[in-house]
Amino acid sequence: MEAYLDNSATTKVSENAARLVYDIMTGDYGNPSSMHKKGFDAEKHIRNARETFAGILKCTEREIFFTSGGTESDNMAIIGAAMAAKRRGKHIITTKIEHPAVLESFEYLAGQGFEATYLPVNGAGQLEPETLKAAMREDTVLVSVMYVNNEIGSLQPIAELGRMIKEAGRDIVFHVDAVQAFGKYRICPYKENIDLLSVSSHKIHGPKGVGALFVKDKTRILPVSFGGGQQKGLRPGTENVPGIAGMALAAREIYEDLDAKTERMYGLKDYFTEEILKLDGTVVNGLTGRQSAPHVVSVSFDGITKSEVLLHALEGRGIYVSSGSACSSNKPALSETLKAIGVKRELLGSTLRFSFSDYTTMEELEYTLGALKELLPVLRKYKPK
Amino acid sequence: MEAYLDNSATTKVSENAARLVYDIMTGDYGNPSSMHKKGFDAEKHIRNARETFAGILKCTEREIFFTSGGTESDNMAIIGAAMAAKRRGKHIITTKIEHPAVLESFEYLAGQGFEATYLPVNGAGQLEPETLKAAMREDTVLVSVMYVNNEIGSLQPIAELGRMIKEAGRDIVFHVDAVQAFGKYRICPYKENIDLLSVSSHKIHGPKGVGALFVKDKTRILPVSFGGGQQKGLRPGTENVPGIAGMALAAREIYEDLDAKTERMYGLKDYFTEEILKLDGTVVNGLTGRQSAPHVVSVSFDGITKSEVLLHALEGRGIYVSSGSACSSNKPALSETLKAIGVKRELLGSTLRFSFSDYTTMEELEYTLGALKELLPVLRKYKPK
Repeated sequence: MEAYLDNSATTKVSENAARLVYDIMTGDYGNPSSMHKKGFDAEKHIRNARETFAGILKCTEREIFFTSGGTESDNMAIIGAAMAAKRRGKHIITTKIEHPAVLESFEYLAGQGFEATYLPVNGAGQLEPETLKAAMREDTVLVSVMYVNNEIGSLQPIAELGRMIKEAGRDIVFHVDAVQAFGKYRICPYKENIDLLSVSSHKIHGPKGVGALFVKDKTRILPVSFGGGQQKGLRPGTENVPGIAGMALAAREIYEDLDAKTERMYGLKDYFTEEILKLDGTVVNGLTGRQSAPHVVSVSFDGITKSEVLLHALEGRGIYVSSGSACSSNKPALSETLKAIGVKRELLGSTLRFSFSDYTTMEELEYTLGALKELLPVLRKYKPK
Repeated sequence: MEAYLDNSATTKVSENAARLVYDIMTGDYGNPSSMHKKGFDAEKHIRNARETFAGILKCTEREIFFTSGGTESDNMAIIGAAMAAKRRGKHIITTKIEHPAVLESFEYLAGQGFEATYLPVNGAGQLEPETLKAAMREDTVLVSVMYVNNEIGSLQPIAELGRMIKEAGRDIVFHVDAVQAFGKYRICPYKENIDLLSVSSHKIHGPKGVGALFVKDKTRILPVSFGGGQQKGLRPGTENVPGIAGMALAAREIYEDLDAKTERMYGLKDYFTEEILKLDGTVVNGLTGRQSAPHVVSVSFDGITKSEVLLHALEGRGIYVSSGSACSSNKPALSETLKAIGVKRELLGSTLRFSFSDYTTMEELEYTLGALKELLPVLRKYKPK
């Protein structure tokens, strides 16, 4: 038996999406910039993908750009928008619990003369609208807040933040990293006053190496890469046609009956949370139930000093989870997100993330809970001083 | 009957590579940064791919980085190396016939205070070593020259240029855009004194959306994208595992019996060139035979004022070629490369590129030659004033 509970790190590609990628690679393999039929056939896949995203995000097709993934989408949005605005002001705002693709883009901009403010979140992992309000200044040009946090699943009050930003100044660009939220929530950038929205394919059962960026009409953004003029010069390079088409198909699939899927996932999450909390010495970080995302459960295990030990014990039984987030797991530092929400110092290294997807089954959760019940007492006995 | 003679724009993905991409998407779908078996299984594909490239380029595995394609490789190399060197000097050199990913990166750097020199080429489309020698200065920090030109297939004297650059100053970084050369030539960066080398997957029967960059040990290069620290922080973002593995397999396939393949392609090219020159009013641009790349034939057709007309007439018969290069074909300007090699003004708009691959057959060429014989006299009659 296997239980893949690391879906916030990456997901299995949908069979239909994988087949489409294969078919395009070997069939409609043309370069969309070519002026002949092979080019048009390839371009049609991109146009269809743009339609799909425009439909899901309720925006126009010209507002959709394709990238190599969430990291590039975040970079392009944040650096592109800040650079385009630098004559107007150099103050940029984000939170302390963003993905490294956001935080490192802010660090880069700080090195380029921008002043970056990293806002704290409350104990539930949420940015309080008042905190943002107090931080915005005359020279603020960009605010970047993630929709759902990747480590604890906390949901930000994006619509409220959006309204506040637009009230503060029409010129402040609002970027939202929706990598963990897309495919779980119905996101409507226009309603929520979002100017730039990052999406990743491989978190929604699409292929790796592809992502999308919504750029609201009239949002000023400078390109951060340079080449043959594709995608209005904003994101040059031959488009990854099979990847883009595969991502769009995965997006269509995930948004089909989304409510029923979300409902089922909340059922799984509630069950898992309840059962986990029945175990001795467990703490679930952040909010539970509908107040946070349907697919992430962050658990601290009292008496497990190094969560990696538990991670590998679970791995031995075919159960795959994460300590922190995969995105930064190569640098084994203590989680900034867990620190930011005030997780007790002694539990910082004792935390695992269990993350679900539409493919997750009750059997996987029961198998995992059974394993935890057996493993925890054993591992706690061998706890190092 | 179909004849796909636009292989310099993009190639059909090899069946084996496409199948591998599919298998990894649905099987080894883990995130290589994950600390469990699913992560290791994914990482193994990346390690294998690195080994493949290190073997082909005769370098070490740690010198291979994976990107989203040729454009990103060029951007990362040129901007990254220039930015890392800017305290040492701000003079950068390239040629007038580079790919837009190189030229636009140079334009960007020019806007950042660098001084860019664009060297002319001779009538054969080659940079004369003496031209480069005369252009290098005390403050030159980067030279970027493509291995094979994408529009006329001209081959640059890379090894000679490399030697000259290293003689001029050990600190000048030599970048080579090998997008059109990789898979056609045995390239050895160490022997040819190349510090940075860009490769694209979709030009060698690999999947789109993936590329590679060789970064010679100790070459100083600053990252141009920011995120979770993958690939030593130089190119962050979850690796496109299936794409990388697919590209590596395509590279292995193309370098298997490379000499026999090249031999066969030269045979095709020689035949095609000879037959084309038998037709009335045709000029083959650049050098022919072994003096230029085995896969590109650029032909100007006297009396065909707009090459698009001929392109579409061929398309009507299932023959796919390019006017200029696909990379810039969305901007229908006159080719800078053709101008640079001194193609007569009245022939600049009359030029088509026929580009081959390992998959190209003699039948495709014969079919194309037959179509040209029929179409040219007809189209010339309707020539606009």
